[in-house]
Amino acid sequence: MTYELYYWDGLQGRGEFVRLALEEAGADYVDVARGERGTAKMMNYMHGKHGYDMPFAPPFLKDGDLIVSHVANILNYLGPKLDLVPKDEKSRLFAHGLQLTITDFLAEVHDTHHPISTADYYEDQRPEAKARSKAFLKHRVPKFIGYFDRIIAANPTKSGYALGDTLTYVDLSLFQLAKGLAYAFPRAMKNFDNDYPRVAKLRDAVAERPNIEAYLRSKRRLAFNESGIFRHYPDLDQDPA
Amino acid sequence: MTYELYYWDGLQGRGEFVRLALEEAGADYVDVARGERGTAKMMNYMHGKHGYDMPFAPPFLKDGDLIVSHVANILNYLGPKLDLVPKDEKSRLFAHGLQLTITDFLAEVHDTHHPISTADYYEDQRPEAKARSKAFLKHRVPKFIGYFDRIIAANPTKSGYALGDTLTYVDLSLFQLAKGLAYAFPRAMKNFDNDYPRVAKLRDAVAERPNIEAYLRSKRRLAFNESGIFRHYPDLDQDPA
Repeated sequence: MTYELYYWDGLQGRGEFVRLALEEAGADYVDVARGERGTAKMMNYMHGKHGYDMPFAPPFLKDGDLIVSHVANILNYLGPKLDLVPKDEKSRLFAHGLQLTITDFLAEVHDTHHPISTADYYEDQRPEAKARSKAFLKHRVPKFIGYFDRIIAANPTKSGYALGDTLTYVDLSLFQLAKGLAYAFPRAMKNFDNDYPRVAKLRDAVAERPNIEAYLRSKRRLAFNESGIFRHYPDLDQDPA
Repeated sequence: MTYELYYWDGLQGRGEFVRLALEEAGADYVDVARGERGTAKMMNYMHGKHGYDMPFAPPFLKDGDLIVSHVANILNYLGPKLDLVPKDEKSRLFAHGLQLTITDFLAEVHDTHHPISTADYYEDQRPEAKARSKAFLKHRVPKFIGYFDRIIAANPTKSGYALGDTLTYVDLSLFQLAKGLAYAFPRAMKNFDNDYPRVAKLRDAVAERPNIEAYLRSKRRLAFNESGIFRHYPDLDQDPA
């Protein structure tokens, strides 16, 4: 069965965390909204034209007659099917908790450029975005990325992964976080590899996996841009705190 | 086995969404951080003193040797055990997606009083909080609460619940959302019952359930206060948009 991924066309955004899992596993999937009339097809689900279980927002995944919305829900669902999480309950619950921490962090990344209103442009909330970015870089990046670095260090298998001794979807998401932060805040992340050596090493290990390497070179991988979550606005960047 | 809930003492916060589920089900649980040396016990988990699966933040639930962190993860775990979600996969995935939409909304509620930095006091970011609250009340409340009202309307069983024909943990969380918004923004929510009649009706139905009614009258239910997610700062309130 072909998985159908529904996400806004033209940006990596939250959909990218699902794409990385599907690509790493070599899964059969269609990125529906990038196809013909794809956005209209996606909106039909959100407007309830295919049933009561209408998603609030993309991304969502269709697998047969199941609709799974939200990145963490999708990855928790796909993880065992794609061999991207250990099958025991303790590991699955822990991995899902880690992914939900990533979810929270992403909302904060988004708010660095939209601290007042998503209904207004970044240009209409620049001073507030600068203030929020400053606090984000000083307090939030160390708190979150430092946590993930400690998680990798605490992994009893010493595999270099977030949990267990094989790659999980959490590792793929951490790769995307590290890449996104470097894109959005190149100056502030200058010392990233020193400050978070385990996350940095994991990022590089993920990039070298054959399926991921092929994906990153393909047209399916869109470049980071200023429609996504990670946006490079030079005004919001600064020297390392 | 007694469930152990770990959450900051002194506020409802995110822990309350878990408490409501445990209380409705009459489950055997301890609110650990409200007991003697409870906060220290909680911090030990977060500092990894009990194992590698250390939570980023409360709330988390301990069930035997399982640690489950994040509200949505906890409710997805408890749902089938407490009979607070239908047992079929489609319903469970849908309920979890709804709960994750609630999670996103709660982060936005929090940012109405802390739009710039959680490291600073509300008093240090008042004008920005006013601007964010204005956008939140105009755009985000209708988008999210309107969505949940449509979800209840679209339920093919016409039960008045978010999904299926029996109460789920999603309904309990929607009760808490409605109560919290009314506490934080009493003026702006004046037309809530007209604007979102199905959510309002559900809120009242939840309040009348015997276990919830008893809980709300007990000392275990803390009052809303200005340490929680829903805070009443009169400056941030306004007439209905």
